[in-house]
Amino acid sequence: MKIGIVGGTGDIGEGIAMRLSPIFDVVVGSREQDKAEATCTMSRELLRKRGKECSLKGVGNQAAIDETDIVILAIPFKHLAGTLETLHGFEDKIVISPVNPMEKRDHFYFVPPPEGSAALMIKRILPPEARICSAFNTIAANKWKALDEELAYSVPVCGDDEEAKQIVMGIVNKVSKLQAFDGGPLTVSCLVESLTPLLLNIARYNKMRDVGIQFH
Amino acid sequence: MKIGIVGGTGDIGEGIAMRLSPIFDVVVGSREQDKAEATCTMSRELLRKRGKECSLKGVGNQAAIDETDIVILAIPFKHLAGTLETLHGFEDKIVISPVNPMEKRDHFYFVPPPEGSAALMIKRILPPEARICSAFNTIAANKWKALDEELAYSVPVCGDDEEAKQIVMGIVNKVSKLQAFDGGPLTVSCLVESLTPLLLNIARYNKMRDVGIQFH
Repeated sequence: MKIGIVGGTGDIGEGIAMRLSPIFDVVVGSREQDKAEATCTMSRELLRKRGKECSLKGVGNQAAIDETDIVILAIPFKHLAGTLETLHGFEDKIVISPVNPMEKRDHFYFVPPPEGSAALMIKRILPPEARICSAFNTIAANKWKALDEELAYSVPVCGDDEEAKQIVMGIVNKVSKLQAFDGGPLTVSCLVESLTPLLLNIARYNKMRDVGIQFH
Repeated sequence: MKIGIVGGTGDIGEGIAMRLSPIFDVVVGSREQDKAEATCTMSRELLRKRGKECSLKGVGNQAAIDETDIVILAIPFKHLAGTLETLHGFEDKIVISPVNPMEKRDHFYFVPPPEGSAALMIKRILPPEARICSAFNTIAANKWKALDEELAYSVPVCGDDEEAKQIVMGIVNKVSKLQAFDGGPLTVSCLVESLTPLLLNIARYNKMRDVGIQFH
């Protein structure tokens, strides 16, 4: 299973790449290939120090799609539509969105696009053959990067393509102690995306850092 | 501390009353006082079997406000506005809303009123002196009533009156193993109220019962 990360040099993307690359074949994409290569060199070193070998490869964002079967869109919401318009070849790919449309004003708010959620906006923009799932929405960048800590969190996964959703849940369940839960179809993905502004408010008002979530 | 439960004979209200009455002085309100008295007799018996003494008292909904300092509105969202219009005397009371505006169509959806959340709707309807907090939104009725099980859940509490919010968080922290978290002001209470339709979807799609939440 080959996984490409669009925006793989950003805060979230870099952490996801380091967690996934010892398990899967991971290709890190960036607008600038040089940056992707530099990030991969650094990440490989961090993993090697922990005795983990991996095959991280830095490429441009388009190649991260072209060379893989599964694409993670590790892009901030404000750059999402603009970035997708510069890319193509999503047909038949499994596309994972960890994107949360939110704003920080005096507090953190969930501010979805007209489609209802970032995942539904992606569905509108990409060709109908793209197999879109939302996942990994609530894992903080710092936690992804804290390689010496387990990730003991629940991960709701939404999607309209049942087979794609099962594959994504399988990927989630292989990472640290993450536990995947079927969150239903994309039409209710807004309920998952609105968790992150809640967790950011909880962190802020209770003087906590990088709050995560568990269902039980 | 005397706590009144408006709608205290409903599914949620009955369970809250049983969990709170061994700790606090609890008055159970209902549209029909007879029903409130019958529920209290049954609940007292269930508690006594477990060696717990309590002072549950059944009254009408209005008396549950008049006789107490803290009022829990254990009312389904669809009856919330109508019920509040028949009641008065909320001035200076701490008013706790566990209400979630949601709908079950093919899935569970968060369907807030124009104010943005049930708590903000309550704020519009009640006099400005009412000290409104949202709390207990995500604890399932069955869990409240499962008296032999601990409630090991996180409870986000929202409110604009800081003193009232601290009092409510203190109450939450005394019940079983519930742990209160400051969720911010009422303007972000929609993020808490939308947790329940998410948890109901998670329960449904993962063949679980009465899913709860923990932050950590």
